[in-house]
Amino acid sequence: MKKVKVYITLRESVLDPQGQAVKDSLHNMEYKNVQDVRIGKFIELELDDTADIDTQIKEMCEKLLANTVIENYRYEIEEGVMQ
Amino acid sequence: MKKVKVYITLRESVLDPQGQAVKDSLHNMEYKNVQDVRIGKFIELELDDTADIDTQIKEMCEKLLANTVIENYRYEIEEGVMQ
Repeated sequence: MKKVKVYITLRESVLDPQGQAVKDSLHNMEYKNVQDVRIGKFIELELDDTADIDTQIKEMCEKLLANTVIENYRYEIEEGVMQ
Repeated sequence: MKKVKVYITLRESVLDPQGQAVKDSLHNMEYKNVQDVRIGKFIELELDDTADIDTQIKEMCEKLLANTVIENYRYEIEEGVMQ
């Protein structure tokens, strides 16, 4: 069994209104030292190991998990199951 | 300047309908080896360093970024700015 951690983030050039809203809220809560906030997705997958696991994960990311027009993705493969 | 990576995940005991829907979609795409999917948030913060930065980040997570009734959070502090 493999555990895969996928990080999906907006491309630098893409505006992040959600991040902006969170930044404004943090400023209203007096955390004035916050300069920037970017919101992304963190997806944990548990899957049976296969010979082409890297190819598979790239396909899953590019076909379903990430919108590659506006998002970047990266992933890490670990042994074992989710905690 | 410090860069903080915050990972927000649903508590184990909490049902993850979004994760279930993604799992079903992956199975429909013939990725039958996927056993479980959990969807969380990945938040990147850029903030000016302060003496009590750990306390500050915990407060931000517990007051705004995470719903601690159903979510866990963890974070990593790094030097420098977001790529």
